[in-house]
Amino acid sequence: MTAAPLPLFQRVALIGAGLIGSSLARVIRREGLASRIAVAARTQKTLETVRRLGLADSATLDSAEAARGADLVIVCAPMSAYAEIAKAIAPALSAGAIVSDVGSVKAPVARDIGAALPRGAHLVPGHPVAGTEHSGPEAGFAELFRGRWCILTPDAKTDRSAVEKVAELWRRAGSMIAVMDAEHHDRVLAITSHLPHLIAYTIVDTAAQLEQDVQGEVIKFSASGFRDFTRIAASDPVMWRDIFLATREAVLEILQRFNEDLTALQRAIRRGDGRMLQETFTRTRAIRRGVIEAKQA
Amino acid sequence: MTAAPLPLFQRVALIGAGLIGSSLARVIRREGLASRIAVAARTQKTLETVRRLGLADSATLDSAEAARGADLVIVCAPMSAYAEIAKAIAPALSAGAIVSDVGSVKAPVARDIGAALPRGAHLVPGHPVAGTEHSGPEAGFAELFRGRWCILTPDAKTDRSAVEKVAELWRRAGSMIAVMDAEHHDRVLAITSHLPHLIAYTIVDTAAQLEQDVQGEVIKFSASGFRDFTRIAASDPVMWRDIFLATREAVLEILQRFNEDLTALQRAIRRGDGRMLQETFTRTRAIRRGVIEAKQA
Repeated sequence: MTAAPLPLFQRVALIGAGLIGSSLARVIRREGLASRIAVAARTQKTLETVRRLGLADSATLDSAEAARGADLVIVCAPMSAYAEIAKAIAPALSAGAIVSDVGSVKAPVARDIGAALPRGAHLVPGHPVAGTEHSGPEAGFAELFRGRWCILTPDAKTDRSAVEKVAELWRRAGSMIAVMDAEHHDRVLAITSHLPHLIAYTIVDTAAQLEQDVQGEVIKFSASGFRDFTRIAASDPVMWRDIFLATREAVLEILQRFNEDLTALQRAIRRGDGRMLQETFTRTRAIRRGVIEAKQA
Repeated sequence: MTAAPLPLFQRVALIGAGLIGSSLARVIRREGLASRIAVAARTQKTLETVRRLGLADSATLDSAEAARGADLVIVCAPMSAYAEIAKAIAPALSAGAIVSDVGSVKAPVARDIGAALPRGAHLVPGHPVAGTEHSGPEAGFAELFRGRWCILTPDAKTDRSAVEKVAELWRRAGSMIAVMDAEHHDRVLAITSHLPHLIAYTIVDTAAQLEQDVQGEVIKFSASGFRDFTRIAASDPVMWRDIFLATREAVLEILQRFNEDLTALQRAIRRGDGRMLQETFTRTRAIRRGVIEAKQA
């Protein structure tokens, strides 16, 4: 008979219990990754939902209370709340505590969270590349991260064993781990995630401003491409507001390239240049094959 | 004991056997909608695939041969081939034959097909709002049209019973029927289908032009939004070239609106206007709810 393995962490504090935070709570519980799970919610309503769903061993509205005594704190809140949360939890952190997050933009984390942390705390920023168009604690599920990437962006001086412990948590969630520089992360995600969301929000909003009768038909006939954009454009508005504010330069740069490419296609349509259109539409198929081969389809 | 009902048509000719044509052949066979199915393929390779899959009672490379004696001819070819096909089949058409199509742009059909037809033939243009990113006769399946709309755009003078017979065929395929003016159809589809495809092609092509190392990462992390665009941008290049050439005015007009809306969001990002971003991203959620309520999600 072998003894049960020790949990990876003694106490994990999740600051925020939306789609990602509540999914993480479910994973940690299922995998036995922590002896105790503490959750801090921002609203009374979320707090009650967390309690009703039994997602945590303790739940509170006070971030510092949740973080006290935790060896891992994961900030799962909108990025605009990071600085305030960091300030609140810093005095409560144990020596050697690891602090991580799940935000979609990584360069600002060192400034917004890192700067407030006491000496001896380890900052390991993270970004699980997973999600759905649903929000809130009831939308979470433990399988959300399976087969998806989790990108960690510690700086070069970060304690390797702290990075490894966070990586192990995500591996147990079913994720593959990539470690990269925060700025590089933001450039890659600008095209894979931020630009697609901005475009989807735009096109759906363009439709939302059409005359009422046409709008009804747009919904009726949405199966022809539009509905895929509506799904993306139903993502959490506060989260996405914060992403675009946090990653302004990277998004504006890729948007510039996109606009140039769109203008070229627009010009080809206006001039009736079928050859240019067909060449472009053929080139894009190769990228789809890449996505399928990478098993991300 | 009741006698088996008479089939809706004696001989249906499908001119083209790609995703849509081959799916229709499967529906017609399953539902017993025709005594005979004749298919005209454009290439020897498609012809052999049609024969191997047993999609038709007769298959040929000669459109006129397929159309001869048919009481329903459905053109399922790229729109750039319409005029040539119409010219080829016109002399072979029986008196009272119905001619339809499945193209995504409807205004040009009267000119490209209608003008060539003999007196007594009935033109009932159609557009099944259904599809996948796959092409060719092997990609087709009988369930493709189930729960989707089929839009018919006959002109006001078209024989009502001809329209009704085409509508009945699509109902048996599982589709809902909408009848509207061809120009109105093209305006609605410009936003629900043509603009989304143009945008998806653009963004995937923007990615295709990034440096090789970033491109690999874009594919790796595509689950964050990008992969949905790659699916749309993997649609048939020739079909989409023809769509944009055929519906230039409607697409350029909606593209203009889209560009204005994108510029406004770009400006909000540059100026850090979080309120405008959040308002826009909240408004778009309502459209998603509409799509879900309309059971098109």
